[in-house]
Amino acid sequence: MSVNIKPLADRVLVEPAAAEEKTAGGIFIPDTAKEKPQRGVVVAVGNGKPDEPMTVKVGDKVLYGKYSGSELALEGKDYLIMRESDILAIV
Amino acid sequence: MSVNIKPLADRVLVEPAAAEEKTAGGIFIPDTAKEKPQRGVVVAVGNGKPDEPMTVKVGDKVLYGKYSGSELALEGKDYLIMRESDILAIV
Amino acid sequence: MSVNIKPLADRVLVEPAAAEEKTAGGIFIPDTAKEKPQRGVVVAVGNGKPDEPMTVKVGDKVLYGKYSGSELALEGKDYLIMRESDILAIV
Amino acid sequence: MSVNIKPLADRVLVEPAAAEEKTAGGIFIPDTAKEKPQRGVVVAVGNGKPDEPMTVKVGDKVLYGKYSGSELALEGKDYLIMRESDILAIV
Amino acid sequence: MSVNIKPLADRVLVEPAAAEEKTAGGIFIPDTAKEKPQRGVVVAVGNGKPDEPMTVKVGDKVLYGKYSGSELALEGKDYLIMRESDILAIV
Amino acid sequence: MSVNIKPLADRVLVEPAAAEEKTAGGIFIPDTAKEKPQRGVVVAVGNGKPDEPMTVKVGDKVLYGKYSGSELALEGKDYLIMRESDILAIV
Amino acid sequence: MSVNIKPLADRVLVEPAAAEEKTAGGIFIPDTAKEKPQRGVVVAVGNGKPDEPMTVKVGDKVLYGKYSGSELALEGKDYLIMRESDILAIV
Repeated sequence: MSVNIKPLADRVLVEPAAAEEKTAGGIFIPDTAKEKPQRGVVVAVGNGKPDEPMTVKVGDKVLYGKYSGSELALEGKDYLIMRESDILAIV
Repeated sequence: MSVNIKPLADRVLVEPAAAEEKTAGGIFIPDTAKEKPQRGVVVAVGNGKPDEPMTVKVGDKVLYGKYSGSELALEGKDYLIMRESDILAIV
Repeated sequence: MSVNIKPLADRVLVEPAAAEEKTAGGIFIPDTAKEKPQRGVVVAVGNGKPDEPMTVKVGDKVLYGKYSGSELALEGKDYLIMRESDILAIV
Repeated sequence: MSVNIKPLADRVLVEPAAAEEKTAGGIFIPDTAKEKPQRGVVVAVGNGKPDEPMTVKVGDKVLYGKYSGSELALEGKDYLIMRESDILAIV
Repeated sequence: MSVNIKPLADRVLVEPAAAEEKTAGGIFIPDTAKEKPQRGVVVAVGNGKPDEPMTVKVGDKVLYGKYSGSELALEGKDYLIMRESDILAIV
Repeated sequence: MSVNIKPLADRVLVEPAAAEEKTAGGIFIPDTAKEKPQRGVVVAVGNGKPDEPMTVKVGDKVLYGKYSGSELALEGKDYLIMRESDILAIV
Repeated sequence: MSVNIKPLADRVLVEPAAAEEKTAGGIFIPDTAKEKPQRGVVVAVGNGKPDEPMTVKVGDKVLYGKYSGSELALEGKDYLIMRESDILAIV
């Protein structure tokens, strides 16, 4: 869960939670039918904007909107980089 | 009515009031015909934006616009997470 | 004219004036042909936004734009909830 | 030219100048062909926005854009209610 | 070049320079083919917005964008009324 | 390179660099195929906006976006007048 | 990696990392099929906007959105000039 990256300003790097690959009944869902995960863990945090310190910190489990952030591949893993304002809540 | 979630900034978690499942005459309404509820109870409140404390508090019954907020499922129940500015009034 | 509701921020609850149900010649107008009323009475007022106190008060007769506000049914009566900036004038 | 109405904030009530009903050659113009008047007289003025006092006053003859303001009928006469920023000049 | 009109706020009344009515070869250009002039002379100036005094003054020859301002007929002459920010340069 | 013109506010008058009229192989490019120049020399500078002094000065060679500014013909030469924020860099 | 150019305000000149010209299996990818690089090295930095000093500096390896910035050819090499806010993170 450690990555060597410094998000700029009020940006946050989030590792999305893995989507369930089976339905409750045990049927495999093909890749395109899986809904994008909306939960994740914060793995890197920017320094905030001037006079606006960051609220989330590394390790926080967060909820975010379905279409938030840009996808980013780092060392073979997919992350999302988004603004803190795209994060809805800490769970 | 207790949930383990902290909305960010000026966001509010609302549990929508259940929509009536029958019409006055006792006829069941199929799911898609039910109008989305516009009343709910506040179940979690963010810390507000800098210099803008929150007005609503946990337990307030609120009215909100039909298309406000994002739907959020937590432990099998549906909630809405919205900004306080989407709340029209406390009833 | 008393309702148990507190509009948030700079919002105002308005009871629209009843539209005329007959034309001058005594012909009943079907419901969809009636033009939406643009006059009403203020029945509840929010606390205003920070540093912007409210101008209108409960009991004021007001004029507002044709498409202002959201409709709201409270105890079988229809109201409009709008921002004070949607109110054009006090008459 | 006196009306019992108080425009809100930076709004101004204007009585439009009557459009010419005949052409120079004496031909009557049907109602839809008349161009909307762009001159009028200020008949009521709001208190302005905080820290922005009003410039126009009751009695000023003003020019305004063709599509400025909302039409308003008061005691059988048509007025326009607009923001002061819709007024182009005092003549 | 004197007109009895006071533009509001940061507005400027401009008398457009006459467009050439003949081409170099002496052919008359029909009215619709003439390109709108982009040069003009300032004939009246508003008081500016709060804390933003005006830069142009009566008599300045100015350049402005092709579609700037609203046309205004005063005593049989055509003027343009525009915001000072529509003026590109003084020549 | 001297012109008698004073751009307003944060505007800058730029003389675009001439586009190459031949390809490397010596073939003439017809006028419409030439890409608009993106380099130019500043020939006149406004006084800036309140509290925002200008950075570029007369004589600076600048780069600007392909569709920046308005074209302006002065004494038979074509210039571009643009806001300083349209200038990408000094070279 | 040294260029003689001064980006204006909060702009940054970035030299994009070269896209891979072969797939893992050794097949050459035709030019149009190559995805635009999203990594690069900062080669020049503006002075920032008033009261907003720059965070990135020359030599920083940065990530940026796929469609950020304008392409710029300097001495036969392609660069991107973008605002610092287009830079997602330093890696």
